[in-house]
Amino acid sequence: MTNIEQGSISYSVADNIGTVEFHHPKGNSLPSALLKELADTIELAGKNEEVKLIVIRSKGDGAFCAGASFDELLAIDNFVDGKKFFMGFAHVLNAMRTCPKLIIVRVQGKTVGGGIGIAAAADYCLAHRDASIKLSELALGIGPFVVGPAVNRKLGTAAFSSLALDARNWYTSDWAYSKGLFNKVLNTTEELDEAVQQLASDLASSNPEAMKEMKDILWQSTGHWHATLEQRAEISGRLVLSDFTREFIQEFKKK
Amino acid sequence: MTNIEQGSISYSVADNIGTVEFHHPKGNSLPSALLKELADTIELAGKNEEVKLIVIRSKGDGAFCAGASFDELLAIDNFVDGKKFFMGFAHVLNAMRTCPKLIIVRVQGKTVGGGIGIAAAADYCLAHRDASIKLSELALGIGPFVVGPAVNRKLGTAAFSSLALDARNWYTSDWAYSKGLFNKVLNTTEELDEAVQQLASDLASSNPEAMKEMKDILWQSTGHWHATLEQRAEISGRLVLSDFTREFIQEFKKK
Amino acid sequence: MTNIEQGSISYSVADNIGTVEFHHPKGNSLPSALLKELADTIELAGKNEEVKLIVIRSKGDGAFCAGASFDELLAIDNFVDGKKFFMGFAHVLNAMRTCPKLIIVRVQGKTVGGGIGIAAAADYCLAHRDASIKLSELALGIGPFVVGPAVNRKLGTAAFSSLALDARNWYTSDWAYSKGLFNKVLNTTEELDEAVQQLASDLASSNPEAMKEMKDILWQSTGHWHATLEQRAEISGRLVLSDFTREFIQEFKKK
Repeated sequence: MTNIEQGSISYSVADNIGTVEFHHPKGNSLPSALLKELADTIELAGKNEEVKLIVIRSKGDGAFCAGASFDELLAIDNFVDGKKFFMGFAHVLNAMRTCPKLIIVRVQGKTVGGGIGIAAAADYCLAHRDASIKLSELALGIGPFVVGPAVNRKLGTAAFSSLALDARNWYTSDWAYSKGLFNKVLNTTEELDEAVQQLASDLASSNPEAMKEMKDILWQSTGHWHATLEQRAEISGRLVLSDFTREFIQEFKKK
Repeated sequence: MTNIEQGSISYSVADNIGTVEFHHPKGNSLPSALLKELADTIELAGKNEEVKLIVIRSKGDGAFCAGASFDELLAIDNFVDGKKFFMGFAHVLNAMRTCPKLIIVRVQGKTVGGGIGIAAAADYCLAHRDASIKLSELALGIGPFVVGPAVNRKLGTAAFSSLALDARNWYTSDWAYSKGLFNKVLNTTEELDEAVQQLASDLASSNPEAMKEMKDILWQSTGHWHATLEQRAEISGRLVLSDFTREFIQEFKKK
Repeated sequence: MTNIEQGSISYSVADNIGTVEFHHPKGNSLPSALLKELADTIELAGKNEEVKLIVIRSKGDGAFCAGASFDELLAIDNFVDGKKFFMGFAHVLNAMRTCPKLIIVRVQGKTVGGGIGIAAAADYCLAHRDASIKLSELALGIGPFVVGPAVNRKLGTAAFSSLALDARNWYTSDWAYSKGLFNKVLNTTEELDEAVQQLASDLASSNPEAMKEMKDILWQSTGHWHATLEQRAEISGRLVLSDFTREFIQEFKKK
């Protein structure tokens, strides 16, 4: 458990369902330390024989995830730190991908950048009607390179282009549902919790061997992500040092 | 022609359209013998020079197809029989895929499991508004492994995940249309028949060489299905012998 | 600049936005000479350092693009000319694909055949509500072979099948939006121009290095198009000489 100021990850198991919850006071954004703990916890849950199904969620009624830590981003001044920063989400996405258990993600509110990657890497994602999404990376002078393969796999090239290039605008949960990011959208938090609980229970009592095979076929041909996401983190790590982005960050820091 | 109790396959040719119709008293479910005859008939129609276009349909106003034969599934007690059972739909899907003629599928009602595979392997699928679909395999302790490549090719990973993991719920024809399983949805049986007839006539009078090339490009990069669908049948053949599924079947037989 | 009778291509640069506009009196159809000039101009804009973003549009309030030149199609009487004719759109699609700048396409009206290929090869496509589309090639005895990879990449196999096989019918801009061909649909020409201008300005002032990397990842795994589109042009070049198509053309010329 990390310091509450830097956020926290909690993990519990009940009725064969492993629940991983992340929390950060700044809109459930995810600094590097939290991302590492999140990836490790997913891996842990994947190895726990008692756990038949994993639910990933975040704390509170506000944003599901505001993406990476902006404070950390502003502090990057060399390629090694830049790559390391962007590898944070790569590790989480790879942990979700290689986990032998099916993973449900519960999205209760607004989701930005890397948070969309977590939603997209779910095997099944349920969201609240108010869960708008924005892939704002390009507006910061970088781009959604690390989450790209996850978003593209679920939403396809056309919808990924919409999100990635129209980086200043929010897209509704209805749009995200129609494009496949969200498998189900619910009107209230109660309905969302009920739907998550119902599906989690149904799956936790399903044939574990069948679910393991399902996980396997759903992620077929993504073995290259291990290398691809690292290359993507390197692209972002270089871009964050570009004149354009450094000026943007300097301007931002003055405010 | 097989015994009517075990269902039947009929095949006729008129106006350069080859029509293959399957029928089974239990909701147009498809036992192994029927699946074999269906695959053979599709192959036959593919070789008939008089046939420029193929329509696959099932009999009656009820379900389009209730999937595989549940009676046969309950009787499986070894891997060889298990694999053979699941190869039934694999043969039909491969027959549709390798057929040099374009194939229209007419879906007049509810469709389950392997029936969704047949709809997905259509080159163009027209459905009645009441044609809800359910991919219930996971609820039986197995999974939609054999039909997976066909469903994934047309609907993508996100919609395939919805159907495969939410195995206890029906999805509407509107949903199936929005995700691409159905290319067109009609309000009445009359409108459905009219639309099937119109498209079939238009295509049957189109350039046969152009349609052969279209078929070819629509199915590019699926050559591996021959091996993949066999591996998938082996996965299902093993799972049907798992403790979980055997207990499920024992419970079911007691009822 | 070509003769106005055969249409024209104009190219201008302002505020780091390169605008390429094509025009032809017959519904903005594109004869071979115009297609060559269009491809060359896109290449030119791609190399111009002042240009940060490219907008492709066509002239007038009518059709965006009526496809290839029907007059030229009717005149083809040998394979070399046939292949050359169909390579016209292949060159444009490859120019858009290999261009290192992001490309916005503005679709103000009806779009047919190869015009759909240009819309599909956009990195972001904005359209007017009245911009219906039709992929009519199969109705002429050929097929949408050259534009196939572009359409399939954005819309997927299911929607491509709808357009390609249902070759006699128009599909609405709503349908094209839901399937991903159009990233945004606007109600009026004013709204369309405003939206194009807004996105173009936003992107033209974004990090050029980040956009170059985005272009690269959006088009990953399309390197084979260079060879594939040529093979497709050869298929069409052969089909246009088939008995079926020659009879169709003879019938048409009599009218």
